[in-house]
Amino acid sequence: MPGYVAPIRDIDFVLHDVLGPLPDDPAWPDRDFTRAVLDQAARVAQEVLAPLNAVGDRQGCRLESGTVRTPDGFRAAFDSLRADGWMSLDAPSDLGGQGLPYLLHTAVNECFVSANMAFNMYQGLTHGACSTVLAHGTAAQIQTWVPRLVSCQWTATMNLTEPQCGTDLGLVRTRAEPQADGSYRITGQKIFISAGDHDLAENIVHLVLARAPGGGEGTRGLSLFIVPKLLLNPDGTLGTRNGVTVDRIERKMGIHASATCALTYDGATGWLLGDLHKGMKAMFTMMNEARLGVALQGYAVAEAAYQAARSYARDRLQGRAATGPQNPAGPADPLIVHPDIRRSLMMQKSFVEGARALTFWVASLIDRAHHGDAGAEGLASLLTPVVKGFLTDMGFQSTVEAQQVFGGHGYIEDQGLSQYVRDARIALIYEGANGVQALDLVGRKLMADGGRHVLGLFQMVQAECQMPGDDPQMLAFTQPLATALGQLRAASDFFLRHGMTSPDAALAGSHDFLHLMGHVCLGLMWTRMARAALSGLATGRGDPDFLHAKLATGRFYMARQLPACALHLARIETGAGPVMALAAEAF
Amino acid sequence: MPGYVAPIRDIDFVLHDVLGPLPDDPAWPDRDFTRAVLDQAARVAQEVLAPLNAVGDRQGCRLESGTVRTPDGFRAAFDSLRADGWMSLDAPSDLGGQGLPYLLHTAVNECFVSANMAFNMYQGLTHGACSTVLAHGTAAQIQTWVPRLVSCQWTATMNLTEPQCGTDLGLVRTRAEPQADGSYRITGQKIFISAGDHDLAENIVHLVLARAPGGGEGTRGLSLFIVPKLLLNPDGTLGTRNGVTVDRIERKMGIHASATCALTYDGATGWLLGDLHKGMKAMFTMMNEARLGVALQGYAVAEAAYQAARSYARDRLQGRAATGPQNPAGPADPLIVHPDIRRSLMMQKSFVEGARALTFWVASLIDRAHHGDAGAEGLASLLTPVVKGFLTDMGFQSTVEAQQVFGGHGYIEDQGLSQYVRDARIALIYEGANGVQALDLVGRKLMADGGRHVLGLFQMVQAECQMPGDDPQMLAFTQPLATALGQLRAASDFFLRHGMTSPDAALAGSHDFLHLMGHVCLGLMWTRMARAALSGLATGRGDPDFLHAKLATGRFYMARQLPACALHLARIETGAGPVMALAAEAF
Repeated sequence: MPGYVAPIRDIDFVLHDVLGPLPDDPAWPDRDFTRAVLDQAARVAQEVLAPLNAVGDRQGCRLESGTVRTPDGFRAAFDSLRADGWMSLDAPSDLGGQGLPYLLHTAVNECFVSANMAFNMYQGLTHGACSTVLAHGTAAQIQTWVPRLVSCQWTATMNLTEPQCGTDLGLVRTRAEPQADGSYRITGQKIFISAGDHDLAENIVHLVLARAPGGGEGTRGLSLFIVPKLLLNPDGTLGTRNGVTVDRIERKMGIHASATCALTYDGATGWLLGDLHKGMKAMFTMMNEARLGVALQGYAVAEAAYQAARSYARDRLQGRAATGPQNPAGPADPLIVHPDIRRSLMMQKSFVEGARALTFWVASLIDRAHHGDAGAEGLASLLTPVVKGFLTDMGFQSTVEAQQVFGGHGYIEDQGLSQYVRDARIALIYEGANGVQALDLVGRKLMADGGRHVLGLFQMVQAECQMPGDDPQMLAFTQPLATALGQLRAASDFFLRHGMTSPDAALAGSHDFLHLMGHVCLGLMWTRMARAALSGLATGRGDPDFLHAKLATGRFYMARQLPACALHLARIETGAGPVMALAAEAF
Repeated sequence: MPGYVAPIRDIDFVLHDVLGPLPDDPAWPDRDFTRAVLDQAARVAQEVLAPLNAVGDRQGCRLESGTVRTPDGFRAAFDSLRADGWMSLDAPSDLGGQGLPYLLHTAVNECFVSANMAFNMYQGLTHGACSTVLAHGTAAQIQTWVPRLVSCQWTATMNLTEPQCGTDLGLVRTRAEPQADGSYRITGQKIFISAGDHDLAENIVHLVLARAPGGGEGTRGLSLFIVPKLLLNPDGTLGTRNGVTVDRIERKMGIHASATCALTYDGATGWLLGDLHKGMKAMFTMMNEARLGVALQGYAVAEAAYQAARSYARDRLQGRAATGPQNPAGPADPLIVHPDIRRSLMMQKSFVEGARALTFWVASLIDRAHHGDAGAEGLASLLTPVVKGFLTDMGFQSTVEAQQVFGGHGYIEDQGLSQYVRDARIALIYEGANGVQALDLVGRKLMADGGRHVLGLFQMVQAECQMPGDDPQMLAFTQPLATALGQLRAASDFFLRHGMTSPDAALAGSHDFLHLMGHVCLGLMWTRMARAALSGLATGRGDPDFLHAKLATGRFYMARQLPACALHLARIETGAGPVMALAAEAF
């Protein structure tokens, strides 16, 4: 089976032909530059990371004398990526980063995650932790911690979950006791800590949510603390071990090479990050970025699985086409002649390409937000639960479809498809399970800032459906998109009419609303991609085969996938009745 | 976490209140008898099989000196089930069986599979092999092989797949050379052989599809052979090893305790079973029964996962209900108060209960067929690909939903949900991948016997929608069912109009048609169950809480799940265009 090949042409198309440069950013790198970066990233993904993917799954991590050992080859690969600057692409240049757009970081990250999702967990959360320290730390904290996190000389973790609580952080019990020197002593147990320990970096900087005195009950009493694995000497060099130990590595369904640790803090020394009792706010900086990263995992693994399924469908000879032999000289036709295999591949392809455009679009909104565009920030915030929930749900389905193409061989571990499915499964769960994303969307984001952002999105989609002077071929996109938009509006209206008197009426439809909105967003992306493809064909820019394939793939999505919106609306409009009819005891 | 509890009350309801006794079978056991059998089966499932499920997953099977060793405890459990007669419930009593209906065997089997899917693979295929030898063997063969297969003193396997072919058996290369004594020498490699070797029985009887001289190319040249692991001495005692060896056990995503073997036949001695060059026909006896068994696996694992999710949702305290605290004395409310958790549990519950009724109905049709009812046989044959494909697809989704209820804990192997998902995954693949089921349905079964069976089904559903004197509460069932039936008819009409000129137009919609028909069948079952529940309530038979819950669960299915039919029809009516638009090279 041929290995993963980074889809550089498609990434390039989305970056430059669909999204285009940031309008007010003269620093946006030109096409030749981004292409050069992406070509190098592709090489790293294909030659360094992909070969370690199956190794990591088989070996997993080991806990030896209190320290986690990562699989063979991980240390060398991590050193090499760090040395070549891949871990600091979009960090500010005055802190040792390369000052490139977050969008470009996202494009590179897709290739790395497709090649090896588990490996990327070690640098992925470090990226978000950096942003958190930058946003909420003092100047001294930024100077102490950020440069070595930017470079991944040290890595970082995010400590929220405890045995008794995950989603409901108001139940956190870990305590922080203030000391005379301004530090805190942190005591408690944290579980599910990704990269909680490992042998890839000299130090690990834990960001820990804990309860300092005087903060009251619930989430309002929580503060965020910096708790390093190794304390620093006054001169900044590494000192003694802090009071944090690894209890165990969890035995998980997938991402075996990512060490998911249970950590015990026993009077560990920590320093407050951001304001006292405002820990949730600081943590959300990290979580929002992490959620977009998980959305990316959802489709990046599906991309790798799709590539494998496509190759297998072309190579495996089995049966004959119903319309007559396509490979008469061979003993049978390749699987790809069969319509049901095509259906599956088209579902995968149209999802992955649409998801890529959507993720890149949200990343570009975050770049705009960094440039002070409040509208972009609000829209990114609205879209974050949608991309996290929708792209991971659909990404998992797409990966399962890819496995199915392999028949029995897909169930055998050595083929790699099982690993893709097992790895992809976590993305629906962590950084807020998808049900929590749906709750965030319907219970909070829809009405944020008086509903301005969702109304702005509706107008944007409507404008896309009514472009003056459109090529008639665009009707295959704009008509279904307009229908889907109407369904999304009807669902919002239903929530507006019933949500005030019965919150359950909205919440019972939250999952379906998230999917409905996800489909509309992907429909919007396909409409934009179709317009870019037609424009390329009309002006002779780009490979016509590629652009025609883009149009055909988009038409599949609009014709076959977008009609799911009607189903989601129908479910939403049944309200809470069917969902809540049974008493808890009657299940 | 509480363990699996066999849902005896629901099984009893389906057996007696929904299906009722076979009308022309005075031997059908009465309710007290079946209840006694089911209570004992529940005890075996809960106390003997369920405790071995996680053990089997962790240990898997080992190949030691050419023999497969099953996990700790499997041998003792197998001996105990055999001794107590559980493996021969529905076999003819003159061959050592207990002569009970296949329906009752199916009900017992559900409990065993829910408790331990992998364990059941060792006896499951033996059951089908017995039927095959009974149907196609000579009197001497039946006498030699069947009694010891009925009792599972020996077990059996089904050898179709080879490295170069699974679905397309026309590519089989294993050769059978006739010998002077009437036997054959079998040479070739077979893969994916479930229970291909193990230490649970004295002998293993392989049924092997191979190519004997003079049969020509393709599937027409195939014959079926009996090839035992140990040859028999003239007096019937076990003799020397036959020429079949285990190359390896596959490392799989799930059902680790089921030994999936690659076998090499090197001049092994075999005997023709059934007619020369009619091996496919004989093999289909085994495959059809195996397909219903796999359909059962689809929902039986989902039932076990649902039970776990239900317990977790009741016990785990996290967050507060949007409508106000439901557990004000505790630190938080149980998960089950949240509408999105309810949605998930209702989806699982309404699927599993509907699937149970559908599977039992098909099993009862097979009983009727055994009593000579040709219409029942035709209908069972039509429904076989539907239940195999639909119940395993939906069963996997349902199991994934159950895992999701656990949040991060669902991803940890020790919780057991990962195993359910990994185990459930195979059911979509083996005994004909679900795409092949859809092809079988649309390409063969729909038009079998001039379309008589599908038209009969339509009429049956229509009659169910128009019952005279129906309780008005039935409208919540009959109206959606009538709508769904209309959509199923429209899809059939689309195939009739376009299938002749363009076979791809039907095949591109085959997956959606299978699901559309699956939903109609589940809608039919829910309508029947609702009518039985209302009748019980009206006449004071049965527990009213149970019957009210049954109605509410059914209303959820009709209101929230059945509308998927419209989506499937919309996809089907796009025809082959969107699916087949891309050239193979353009993927």
